Amino acid sequence: MKIVLIGASGTIGGRIYETLSKKHEVIRASRKGEDVEVDITSTDSIEQMYRSVAGIEAVICAAGGAKFGPFNDLSEEDLYIGIRSKMMGQVNLVRIGQNYVNDGASFTLTTGILAEEPVVGSVGLALVNGAVNSFAIAAALELPRGMRVNVVCPTVVEDSAETYGDIFAGFDPAPMGRVVNAYVRSITGRFTGRVICVY
Amino acid sequence: MKIVLIGASGTIGGRIYETLSKKHEVIRASRKGEDVEVDITSTDSIEQMYRSVAGIEAVICAAGGAKFGPFNDLSEEDLYIGIRSKMMGQVNLVRIGQNYVNDGASFTLTTGILAEEPVVGSVGLALVNGAVNSFAIAAALELPRGMRVNVVCPTVVEDSAETYGDIFAGFDPAPMGRVVNAYVRSITGRFTGRVICVY
Repeated sequence: MKIVLIGASGTIGGRIYETLSKKHEVIRASRKGEDVEVDITSTDSIEQMYRSVAGIEAVICAAGGAKFGPFNDLSEEDLYIGIRSKMMGQVNLVRIGQNYVNDGASFTLTTGILAEEPVVGSVGLALVNGAVNSFAIAAALELPRGMRVNVVCPTVVEDSAETYGDIFAGFDPAPMGRVVNAYVRSITGRFTGRVICVY
Repeated sequence: MKIVLIGASGTIGGRIYETLSKKHEVIRASRKGEDVEVDITSTDSIEQMYRSVAGIEAVICAAGGAKFGPFNDLSEEDLYIGIRSKMMGQVNLVRIGQNYVNDGASFTLTTGILAEEPVVGSVGLALVNGAVNSFAIAAALELPRGMRVNVVCPTVVEDSAETYGDIFAGFDPAPMGRVVNAYVRSITGRFTGRVICVY
């Protein structure tokens, strides 16, 4: 399968790459441009990426950020960081991608547990995670040519549990193998419009 | 109770006003400015509204739109209509309002069934509804001075079932009394961070 993986240098993306590249042709896309350059906050950049890679059978996005911080300190501009990146970045990967990818191709996006189990400081992330979850369920009804879209929505993952420390106190970190499997299930399965919770 | 109701001239807002104004002081806020003017797409306008009304004990938002239409026809700008209005309009009512309203005041926002039961053409609405649902759950953890925030998430309501016609074919329209009751429960109850589904 020919897969474009956005965010291959991240904690989750790196493990997805490790696993999928054993069996598939995985093109790593990021701002650094390991294989192809893309900045998901720019629709022009997304358009350019799709133009430069033919025959895509799966798109996985494990990229996109949002500002973490106390709600009372967040400015409107702080919230728009996540809106332009993790939210509209992923929306636009599907919205624009539907005009380029192969018949039957799949899109797999990434959100996270904060959509339904928020913690203090996570308003900006909850907002965009909730948006992308509902977006995928809705977009799945309308994608043309047998395309599919799903979301992987993990809890804090084992490899970043230490980095986040007390923010996720009491959350059971998800083993990386389980998280990667959710992406594998999404690209190899036939289902669409699903939020695959890994927690 | 002193309540600011944004969107009192709408289908749902009108019924909320009818019911609540019998027992409470309800200040109607909208772009037309029945009692006070507000354009929720503008943070300046929201700030001005809060400055002009002292002693607010509840804020209800039954306003805010998003573009309905086929996913493949939606431009990024089309999606931003809903982001600036129904999504960030409601987020900003809480974000800015927390600095003005009374101790223990409540915010009640409005989303809709399309967040989890989308229909064809509802991507723009699903996106913002999902965002606001998750936002409220997260913001509830952090509001100061005993404030609360909840969301009323109705299915198509009886009074607009005819207007929407086939879009909601097969959806049971919610009786207006049930929908209004959800707002009453939110402002008079003690709970916070809840999405009250009326369907």
